[in-house]
Amino acid sequence: GDMRDISCDINGGRQVIPCKAEGSQVFIPFSFLEKEFEVSGHLDEKKDTFMWVHSQAKIFRPKGRYNPTGVFTYFENYQVESRDRVKCISGKFGVPISTQWSSQGYFYPIQIAQFGLSHFSKFLVEGEPHRLMIEDGEDIRASWRPSVTLSAVSQDSNDLIVNNVVQMENPGNTTKAFTLRFEDIAGANINSNIKQLVLSWDMKISKCPSKCALKIIVTVLCDSKPYYLHYVNEDFLIDVKDNKHFYYGLGQEMESDWQHVIRDVHIDTQKGLSFKSPSKRSKSHIKIAKSKVVLESFTIHVSPGVTFLLDNLTMSNAEHMAQFYQAADWFVLNQDDMGGWPIPVKRKFSSDFPAVLEPGWNSAMSQGHALSLLSRAYYFSNSSAYKNALVRAISKIFELSGLERGVQTRFLDKYVWYEEYPTTPSSFVLNGFMYALLGLYDLKMVKVSGGVSTKADKLYEEGLQSLKMMLPLFDTGSGTMYDLRHFTVPGVTPNLARIDYHVTHINQLLTFATFEEDPIFKTTAERWIGYTQGIRAPHN
Amino acid sequence: GDMRDISCDINGGRQVIPCKAEGSQVFIPFSFLEKEFEVSGHLDEKKDTFMWVHSQAKIFRPKGRYNPTGVFTYFENYQVESRDRVKCISGKFGVPISTQWSSQGYFYPIQIAQFGLSHFSKFLVEGEPHRLMIEDGEDIRASWRPSVTLSAVSQDSNDLIVNNVVQMENPGNTTKAFTLRFEDIAGANINSNIKQLVLSWDMKISKCPSKCALKIIVTVLCDSKPYYLHYVNEDFLIDVKDNKHFYYGLGQEMESDWQHVIRDVHIDTQKGLSFKSPSKRSKSHIKIAKSKVVLESFTIHVSPGVTFLLDNLTMSNAEHMAQFYQAADWFVLNQDDMGGWPIPVKRKFSSDFPAVLEPGWNSAMSQGHALSLLSRAYYFSNSSAYKNALVRAISKIFELSGLERGVQTRFLDKYVWYEEYPTTPSSFVLNGFMYALLGLYDLKMVKVSGGVSTKADKLYEEGLQSLKMMLPLFDTGSGTMYDLRHFTVPGVTPNLARIDYHVTHINQLLTFATFEEDPIFKTTAERWIGYTQGIRAPHN
Ligand SMILES: [Ca+2]
Ligand SMILES: [Ca+2]
Repeated sequence: GDMRDISCDINGGRQVIPCKAEGSQVFIPFSFLEKEFEVSGHLDEKKDTFMWVHSQAKIFRPKGRYNPTGVFTYFENYQVESRDRVKCISGKFGVPISTQWSSQGYFYPIQIAQFGLSHFSKFLVEGEPHRLMIEDGEDIRASWRPSVTLSAVSQDSNDLIVNNVVQMENPGNTTKAFTLRFEDIAGANINSNIKQLVLSWDMKISKCPSKCALKIIVTVLCDSKPYYLHYVNEDFLIDVKDNKHFYYGLGQEMESDWQHVIRDVHIDTQKGLSFKSPSKRSKSHIKIAKSKVVLESFTIHVSPGVTFLLDNLTMSNAEHMAQFYQAADWFVLNQDDMGGWPIPVKRKFSSDFPAVLEPGWNSAMSQGHALSLLSRAYYFSNSSAYKNALVRAISKIFELSGLERGVQTRFLDKYVWYEEYPTTPSSFVLNGFMYALLGLYDLKMVKVSGGVSTKADKLYEEGLQSLKMMLPLFDTGSGTMYDLRHFTVPGVTPNLARIDYHVTHINQLLTFATFEEDPIFKTTAERWIGYTQGIRAPHN
Repeated sequence: GDMRDISCDINGGRQVIPCKAEGSQVFIPFSFLEKEFEVSGHLDEKKDTFMWVHSQAKIFRPKGRYNPTGVFTYFENYQVESRDRVKCISGKFGVPISTQWSSQGYFYPIQIAQFGLSHFSKFLVEGEPHRLMIEDGEDIRASWRPSVTLSAVSQDSNDLIVNNVVQMENPGNTTKAFTLRFEDIAGANINSNIKQLVLSWDMKISKCPSKCALKIIVTVLCDSKPYYLHYVNEDFLIDVKDNKHFYYGLGQEMESDWQHVIRDVHIDTQKGLSFKSPSKRSKSHIKIAKSKVVLESFTIHVSPGVTFLLDNLTMSNAEHMAQFYQAADWFVLNQDDMGGWPIPVKRKFSSDFPAVLEPGWNSAMSQGHALSLLSRAYYFSNSSAYKNALVRAISKIFELSGLERGVQTRFLDKYVWYEEYPTTPSSFVLNGFMYALLGLYDLKMVKVSGGVSTKADKLYEEGLQSLKMMLPLFDTGSGTMYDLRHFTVPGVTPNLARIDYHVTHINQLLTFATFEEDPIFKTTAERWIGYTQGIRAPHN
């Protein structure tokens, strides 16, 4: 039959689109269906086959029983720092800075914990990184121009092992630069497949006049174009000049103590390229391939009168464990009196949900993620700093209401719920609650003494009971609800979970299913997986 | 560009269908979309336009404020007796017999009330029917062959007005037949546009030997083919012979009192044609157009020794009020000691919802519909029989649990709910609950004395509160849940409402919105109307 052009009138004139017909058979353009039903597909030209997919959902099926001191759910698949809403990695703390609800950037404990947990999980999956020591002041020495001297330092006077470090002095009146070129480094393989783009070093300003400026410039080539990463002893986060000079503040207190710096120059270049001043916000985020980034030089600019010490300059493809500990240390350093990590930005919701969180709110998700992170840090390091942070983290916040800067609410005065957003009225965000429960589970299983794990157990079991009872309320028969705002404020439009969150729900349920006996986790997860393939619940 | 044939692979090989492509544009056959997304459409060949509709949903927008003694919601649009799941109209009670959960057929109070309420509503909308008296024993006389005698009857000895009735005696030894042909009836217009296919009459067997048989045969032509409707003094419901003889039992107790019979011969012919013996169940239901049905003759077969009395033989296009009262009278006659109308069939649910209702259960929906029906019957007739039935109907059942043969449950021990299916665990069917509330509202507003309306008010207000709070739980963001079985039994698949029930939900909410001030009814209804046009709630 002949194919002819016809019109398609969608729902009584809501839209009119061009269609095709062959006899009585009507053909609808996929470009319309794509938007109308949020499906996707691509034409495989070779096979002349169109691959229709209901969703791009990627389900991570657990490989085994969830281990509270092992990989955190499926976080080995994440790289938090490359996300668009990460402004940059803080030079001072080595943790990401979020722009999610404030373009200025702020420390967002949830993101920081996820950064730490993903690095931890990647370490367990990938194992030790490919690492090359460039300069340790001992056997391994770099070719500095001009050459540098060594200095012996020790932890204390009883220290038997003398550690040599590189010393860079500037007795002159102008800034003095010490440079090394990566092409001169034996074994650096700067063009190899395994890109060693993570630089780390220990450093200290040992002598400083009234005003001491320090700047480390890492020059990288990207498609043969030079970019300059400036690491400076300032307190700002990031700044950019001429679209090729990217400045990161390492903090002003560099002289007080040795500082361990880890910089992923791939990320630092990318964040610099994507940097927009708060006045000209834009959604454009520049991604550059790792393979295109080549390390060129490492230069230390020392201002007059300053003496700078450097040790253990290393290049590697990853520093997962060190970055994990940097995240855990951020939590130790930034915990407040209540045991929380108050979020410094205001959080508003959609126009018809009348809740507002004023700066300083705690989140059950950050609290839970902190437990997952600190439990692992404690388990692996046995350091009392992490243990003390764990003790404080569950001392109050899980039991106080949002109005008391806690995170607990109850569903119809009955089921305890830990709120990602402790709004009034309650919002009952599902994924944040499940992460909170996982944190409690981790702490419970790591068996911290002094009643800590017992308390975590109680909080966990209460919450788990709620989860089992309330899970069905999130099931729409073709997807899931992100929260229950439509229930707490009758009349409010339901807030459906977009596919990413739907998949998060599924992955979380699959995780619970590996260690909780109740079949509801597995049953529900499998039904929800069906939804990602267009298999809806039946109607009557 | 040239249109070419390609394959469409749906969700990784779940299905492969033939598609079309023109360049990089892909066209999907509507026949696939129709099933995949349950949408519909038709090709308007003249305009070369395809009319795509998300659903065939028909929303009845209320014309004004709901009136508890007026039209019942939008029931003027229904004709209960023509539904497939109505086996036939009972000869004895004039009410429908359901085959919904038992092919044998049974009195289903919900269906009977809907039958009554739709006839009541149709009467208010349509007004008095087109009616032709054929035989009243007074001024209007029919040409019976053989001719008949008259007899004067009176209610009691004090009766001043003498009523003449037609008397048919059979002193012989064989059955005697009295016939009238509709073509002989002046003004019957048997071929006119306004089909007067409802026959009604008053009758009584005034003399009867040990065994007295009576049969009234109405012969109709349908496409010139004769069908014989046999109305007999037997207790069975319906029987069929040779696919043209359709038997209806008027009950054996015809001699005890005058009986008012109303038969819609169009419906009786259709139900006869659709009749299947329980052994050979089939889904085929035959519909015949009213315009094709022509009345031919009305014959009374009187067995030996019997004297039969007949009065007020009438043909009309409808007998809405009389049928409404027949339904109300069924409720008066069949109410049990608890004040309910126990449903005589077992009710099972889907395989994964473990509830069973054993025969004898009460339903909040039948209870509510009964209140709506009896409130109207009481308001218009002022008859104490209806009032007494109303008193009994709310005496207990709304406050007892399903296990006590009542209908009340609570959502999380908090919100009172009246159950269409008082299952254990609870099912929380939405449409039945809203009908129950409407019944309570009707009774409350009709202001029956003796604390009855006060009690209805209390039950209504409690339920309304629950409705307002729980409505959101039925909202899926793209449709509605039929019930909350997935919540009461965690793990159970949600039972989505098919489009008919979704529309019922909407129509019910629009009804509440006409008299309840809370904006939730209107807001929710409008959102749910959007769903019928493919406008989903947003996702985050
Ligand atoms: Ca050293
Ligand atoms: Ca008469």
